Amino acid sequence: MKYLRVKDPTEMVVFFKTDLREGADEEAYGATSRRMHEIVEAMPGFIGMKTYSSEDGDEVFIARFKDEASLEAWRLEPEHLEVQRRGREEFYRHFWVQVCKVTRQYEFWAEGK
Amino acid sequence: MKYLRVKDPTEMVVFFKTDLREGADEEAYGATSRRMHEIVEAMPGFIGMKTYSSEDGDEVFIARFKDEASLEAWRLEPEHLEVQRRGREEFYRHFWVQVCKVTRQYEFWAEGK
Repeated sequence: MKYLRVKDPTEMVVFFKTDLREGADEEAYGATSRRMHEIVEAMPGFIGMKTYSSEDGDEVFIARFKDEASLEAWRLEPEHLEVQRRGREEFYRHFWVQVCKVTRQYEFWAEGK
Repeated sequence: MKYLRVKDPTEMVVFFKTDLREGADEEAYGATSRRMHEIVEAMPGFIGMKTYSSEDGDEVFIARFKDEASLEAWRLEPEHLEVQRRGREEFYRHFWVQVCKVTRQYEFWAEGK
């Protein structure tokens, strides 16, 4: 049996739910998303991101960063700032963002690892 | 255009990933899970929980509580404590828990709501 507790976790988790506007330019939106992925994946402290869905049709995008500083660097990245503006002005009808700080993290294995 | 920022958010989000042991009693595990759902759903401050999957097969259970106190009450609920012990001793080969505190939350609508 092994129990591992992360000491002083720093990870940040971002939830992002979006609804595109009727008539939004989906091609431009797709290209913009791909460009944002390209940039964020090269940023120090970026851990990963993925879209998750529940059985009842809830869909949420989850991104993880090593710490507040790396998330803040991404939030303020110049191309990303411009895309955030386009998100509000061109693409989204609605979005919801929740930023969380990991406060406890642990892992358990029934057999020693 | 409407932008709504949650002032002083208190919400807690728990991620939970599990792997059952080979030979675990799946019937007992199912009954235990249902019982835990029943209890947690009646607890003050419980917001909701759902299983999410990504396209590449990652599966995660996400639970939300109104604040640290309500999450702590659930963590220390007597039947739940006993089930946590059974989880380690009987059911799980491995699990991973990440507890997060919401630090920022906002929502946007392109048209006034």
